[in-house]
Amino acid sequence: MDYRKESLKLHGQWKGKVEVVARAKVGDRDALSLAYTPGVAEPCLAIQEDYSKSWELTRRWNMVAVITDGTAVLGLGDIGPEAGMPVMEGKCVLFKEFGDVDAFPICVRTKDVDEIVETIYNISGSFGGINLEDIAAPRCFEIEEKLKERCDIPIFHDDQHGTAVVVSAALINATKIIGKPLSRCKAVINGSGAAGVAIAKLLMTLGLNDVILCDRTGAIYEGRENLNASKEAIAKVTNRGMTKGGLEEAIKGTDVFIGVSAPGVVTPEMVKSMNPDPIVLAMANPTPEIMPDLAIKAGAKIVGTGRSDFPNQINNVVAFPGIFRGALDVRASAITENMKIAAAYAIASLVDDDKLEPDYILPYAFDPRIKDTVAKAVGEAAIKDGVSRLHPKDEEKSE
Amino acid sequence: MDYRKESLKLHGQWKGKVEVVARAKVGDRDALSLAYTPGVAEPCLAIQEDYSKSWELTRRWNMVAVITDGTAVLGLGDIGPEAGMPVMEGKCVLFKEFGDVDAFPICVRTKDVDEIVETIYNISGSFGGINLEDIAAPRCFEIEEKLKERCDIPIFHDDQHGTAVVVSAALINATKIIGKPLSRCKAVINGSGAAGVAIAKLLMTLGLNDVILCDRTGAIYEGRENLNASKEAIAKVTNRGMTKGGLEEAIKGTDVFIGVSAPGVVTPEMVKSMNPDPIVLAMANPTPEIMPDLAIKAGAKIVGTGRSDFPNQINNVVAFPGIFRGALDVRASAITENMKIAAAYAIASLVDDDKLEPDYILPYAFDPRIKDTVAKAVGEAAIKDGVSRLHPKDEEKSE
Repeated sequence: MDYRKESLKLHGQWKGKVEVVARAKVGDRDALSLAYTPGVAEPCLAIQEDYSKSWELTRRWNMVAVITDGTAVLGLGDIGPEAGMPVMEGKCVLFKEFGDVDAFPICVRTKDVDEIVETIYNISGSFGGINLEDIAAPRCFEIEEKLKERCDIPIFHDDQHGTAVVVSAALINATKIIGKPLSRCKAVINGSGAAGVAIAKLLMTLGLNDVILCDRTGAIYEGRENLNASKEAIAKVTNRGMTKGGLEEAIKGTDVFIGVSAPGVVTPEMVKSMNPDPIVLAMANPTPEIMPDLAIKAGAKIVGTGRSDFPNQINNVVAFPGIFRGALDVRASAITENMKIAAAYAIASLVDDDKLEPDYILPYAFDPRIKDTVAKAVGEAAIKDGVSRLHPKDEEKSE
Repeated sequence: MDYRKESLKLHGQWKGKVEVVARAKVGDRDALSLAYTPGVAEPCLAIQEDYSKSWELTRRWNMVAVITDGTAVLGLGDIGPEAGMPVMEGKCVLFKEFGDVDAFPICVRTKDVDEIVETIYNISGSFGGINLEDIAAPRCFEIEEKLKERCDIPIFHDDQHGTAVVVSAALINATKIIGKPLSRCKAVINGSGAAGVAIAKLLMTLGLNDVILCDRTGAIYEGRENLNASKEAIAKVTNRGMTKGGLEEAIKGTDVFIGVSAPGVVTPEMVKSMNPDPIVLAMANPTPEIMPDLAIKAGAKIVGTGRSDFPNQINNVVAFPGIFRGALDVRASAITENMKIAAAYAIASLVDDDKLEPDYILPYAFDPRIKDTVAKAVGEAAIKDGVSRLHPKDEEKSE
């Protein structure tokens, strides 16, 4: 099937992939007086008196905004806010179908960091969470950080953290197969945009000690020229051996390759230069950094890609719906590192040890257990971290 | 029934009066590839190439934002953005049930005019229209004006213009009954906030020549002290006889009283001081400026209120759903004066001349003909005014 041609046709028929429907009916005067004036004054006053009631008396408890500025949509680049909407609507469909989360798509008509932050903060009282989407690096880091400081609801840039969670889940299981714990692995990450940096950070929290990030210039090391703020920060805690040179230098002697970069940039020779039985997660889409058959032939033990037509698809859809479901279920005020790590272990746990094999390191996207398993783990981590409105940490301690 | 108590209970059960649902399903890999990646790239590129396609390929064509800052919610005053949400959600339900319009509630966490404008402008590419709601005067005027200048979609402050349209419809029919055209009537409007000023303007466009607005200080006249910008502007075109004094002075010798003010401020003596067979629209809620039985006893020929338990309810729900339905149907870039006037005549037309009587000057809120009748008239007016994206004025001329 020509997905793109068929998709365009279907979008013309759908006329929008999301729809707002009424949960309260107003078929007669009494119903109108209850859902609207004069009755509605009472829930208004209840929220005015107790702000937390906005999670009980309006849809906020289950409502997430999916927000873009249209600057990094899919692999298409800066196509503008309105042109990004089909992706945002699609993401909202995934939120609903995979997470039972109401999600509403919003595109923002500015590229100014402070204006985006101001706009999203200003509307944040309408939602229980904010999912940032397809915002270009390095702007996305600053936007996320500033919003986290100001907002009292979870702010989650899925391109960063959703990807990092799924890669973490994949490596939790893949390292079991190769019998070498992550803490003893060496890894190289090609691509130092939003996803690459977030993956590095989460893997280091998970125990990875030795990791080199590469960008188009080559290995990133402390003091290198042409580093933006986020690369400069990550350079201080990665590549402590100060490896210099291109990917072909950086990949030598590593156990794990993670690609969030461009088609075909990894050669069989590079895979051969890795440690024995290496793990190759080549996630450039639709064409990976190296095709799975080539990587296997060159000695890779485990290969994952972003594609659904090869084994081990690294797909964010196994992460973000359950993460938000869990965060919303406990009315979380943030998504913490521990919540992301809990999500990664929960996803990994869905592949039983006796079924684990090089071609099956992650649950399939449509595995019906994912949502509840991830949500439960994330919710529990939120409570432990004291970011749940339902279970404040102090109260929980005294329970 | 105790509406407020029962409403609070129901809001706890509804847990949100609106919900976002998926129109595209993603039950298998093919469906996912069509609603999301890789297929979704094609509609994105189509919109990038032709901005108008965002009305065809996303939900924008039918989506309205219902936005408040929480400063003038119902009669409750400034209760804060989150506390205003039950009303916004209720309004969204009315949009859907009475107009087949998708409406999404948003509360904005700032009272600064420019910040509100910036925020709403920034998200306006996600919608086909913006309905401002429960924003206090005089800030609401400036916000609306600035948004109209910047946005390419209809901006409509329902508390102003919806009310003005329904009052206009009521007077179109009421003046038929008293046999005196609006152009020869004298009117007094008590209350000079958002609704009062908008009513005066629209009625003057409809032909009313002689109107006095009053605020708490009394009659508004050119040069009076304590006038804000909007009152100063309206003072230049109303009350040309320079009547001074309180409402009891201003109401003398008028044919029409319009109250958007406070309970009980009109006495039977005031009604008696009006011209014979006067029209009294006393819309303070829930307690009118004068109760209908008192007004009738004092000589009023026709009495309307905001209440559903008296005849002639002046209810915005007969206006805004059809107005937006019509504007969206022709992809209007604005809601013009002619569109509002068309709506008023369309609403009035739904009471047949042979059924017109003092107790029946407006269609009932649940009259199933309203939506299509109003939408058709509004859409035609939009095309005539050249604000329809489907029917640009120039093209229409050459057809």
